[in-house]
Amino acid sequence: MRIKGRDWRTIWLEDDGCSVGVIDQRKLPHFLHIHIIRSLEDAVEAISQMVVRGAPLIGVTGAYGLMLALQKDASDASLDFAYKNLVSSRPTAINLNWALSRVREHVINLPLHLRAEAAKEEAQEIAEEDVLICEEIGEQGLLVLKQINAEKQREQQGKPLNVLTHCNAGWLAAVDWGTALAPVYKAHRTGMNLHVWVDETRPRNQGASLTAYELGCEGIPHTVIVDNAGGHLMQHGQVDVVIVGSDRTTKTGDVCNKIGTYLKALAAFDNSVPFYVALPGSTIDWSVLDGLQEIPIETRSEIEVLEIEGHSENDEIVRVRLCPSQSKGFNPAFDVTPSKLITGLITEKGVCAASESGLKSLYLK
Amino acid sequence: MRIKGRDWRTIWLEDDGCSVGVIDQRKLPHFLHIHIIRSLEDAVEAISQMVVRGAPLIGVTGAYGLMLALQKDASDASLDFAYKNLVSSRPTAINLNWALSRVREHVINLPLHLRAEAAKEEAQEIAEEDVLICEEIGEQGLLVLKQINAEKQREQQGKPLNVLTHCNAGWLAAVDWGTALAPVYKAHRTGMNLHVWVDETRPRNQGASLTAYELGCEGIPHTVIVDNAGGHLMQHGQVDVVIVGSDRTTKTGDVCNKIGTYLKALAAFDNSVPFYVALPGSTIDWSVLDGLQEIPIETRSEIEVLEIEGHSENDEIVRVRLCPSQSKGFNPAFDVTPSKLITGLITEKGVCAASESGLKSLYLK
Repeated sequence: MRIKGRDWRTIWLEDDGCSVGVIDQRKLPHFLHIHIIRSLEDAVEAISQMVVRGAPLIGVTGAYGLMLALQKDASDASLDFAYKNLVSSRPTAINLNWALSRVREHVINLPLHLRAEAAKEEAQEIAEEDVLICEEIGEQGLLVLKQINAEKQREQQGKPLNVLTHCNAGWLAAVDWGTALAPVYKAHRTGMNLHVWVDETRPRNQGASLTAYELGCEGIPHTVIVDNAGGHLMQHGQVDVVIVGSDRTTKTGDVCNKIGTYLKALAAFDNSVPFYVALPGSTIDWSVLDGLQEIPIETRSEIEVLEIEGHSENDEIVRVRLCPSQSKGFNPAFDVTPSKLITGLITEKGVCAASESGLKSLYLK
Repeated sequence: MRIKGRDWRTIWLEDDGCSVGVIDQRKLPHFLHIHIIRSLEDAVEAISQMVVRGAPLIGVTGAYGLMLALQKDASDASLDFAYKNLVSSRPTAINLNWALSRVREHVINLPLHLRAEAAKEEAQEIAEEDVLICEEIGEQGLLVLKQINAEKQREQQGKPLNVLTHCNAGWLAAVDWGTALAPVYKAHRTGMNLHVWVDETRPRNQGASLTAYELGCEGIPHTVIVDNAGGHLMQHGQVDVVIVGSDRTTKTGDVCNKIGTYLKALAAFDNSVPFYVALPGSTIDWSVLDGLQEIPIETRSEIEVLEIEGHSENDEIVRVRLCPSQSKGFNPAFDVTPSKLITGLITEKGVCAASESGLKSLYLK
């Protein structure tokens, strides 16, 4: 997608073939800074420190991380070590595991001298596929938005379609297009009049920083709100549809996504606002039946709650404390939205009910 | 309540009898700073700029504001002017109107030379009453907490009672004791083992700053969480009871309180967690039947969403920007929780159902 008129992706192989460039998402929206990943250790750190984040992008970064490890040492031990370090760098998103397994399976039976090149090809393949999958999610979601907008225009002609989203599941969370925002970009390009309510998404504020930035770069009207405000807007008819992403989707249609998603799903349900989750098939964990009980929820540092970073008058990124110095914080990074609250799942294979039969109808035909 | 071992109130008449001291709540928890209100204009500004906030405290500040206006000019015109300016300084909390009306009615039929002194007495009376009312809310709420804790101890003996609260409805929101936190203080003083989850409460973070500060000063175990986290905690049995305050309570038991309260009420309902609202009778608006349609919701500056203040390494309060410079924000300050989601109302007259018959059983006997 575009930044100041130029097309970007979030991650790319540098010309030297042995380093990977990414947009440093910790510095956005204030600074556009490129971060170079040169080793397995760099890749693990980039994921755990959230230089890159978002389920699809983490998967691709992990794949390139395996490539970097194999370029240095193509042995089985090196592959195992790299796999273990990468897969535990963020525990909740399942498609990190999916991408790592895919690269491992692709190289494990090859002679050592071919492994690094094969890993590179597979990582690039995963990245290219991600772009196509996200674009297809956009096309499928566009059909959903068109239908909801047609209903809206019958009652309130000329008014923009109000979409609410939580966290960032835009192109910055993937390689390009994004998941939850792909339908919004597609709709905008067809000329649909729409407006996005952007949950700021504490504690890391990916909505206020990344989603607002993305939408601004594409010229899409949007308004940032605190995470507390969405329910009130839904009570007053100001939200026509909610679309969020997914870090892990159970076979029964429960969705594990950024902390606070569940609260918005409750409000949407209470106010009969359609609540959609956009996801690639790689986020589906066919081994999990009960999202609430079985998905490990990453607990991040309390510092993310107690302090916050922002852009100062001196054009610097500054960290300030919000809480009394003695107070403790607790910081679960994800929650699980039960399938009963979800209107539908938007995937690259079509739109389905949030249920085992819905997912099977698309993926296990 | 106590700050560093010394007893404080949030507001007091200074010895000169013509100025009013308050704790500047914009500077907490980083600095304990006293702010002096010397005129009607000072009082209006202190309320609108949130030097003071919280429904009960706003009422008392308004009453003193009328006193200050009458000390300068005791005419009917002056009284009207002061009333109008004060009542519109924050539109949502009803007991600002209640306190102002009470002072006006107390002085309106008096000769001019007696009005200022009468207003002073009435303002002091309102302040003293507020302390007694909040303390009684504490006693009534203590009975609720004791019952819930007894049930908890039968199943999980020795575990602390986990209370979740939103925003600040502690003693800093009143003159002393507070509303939602009064039962917590009473329970703590009886030796109950409890722990409070403190919603940070964006955008102004009254939870992270004021509630955490209050609880810390009283030595009550607490943990700050982002507003997104409460639903997840309730899904996992980590919250035994929610208690919040009220800025305006309808005669039918709907509660208008800090933005985001509604989302927590939805989560509590979905997880069968008791959800209580603690309120003085002065927050009841007997003229309102439908909270969602009839209560004016204050919209505050978008700057409160787009930027945030915190304490820097240089021991200064610093403002930083969170969003892209082109992004807009929207900032509704309150939402309405429908009575169907509320387990009970804790008042100075007892605990009742969130309904017209419940409120009438206490107040219109």
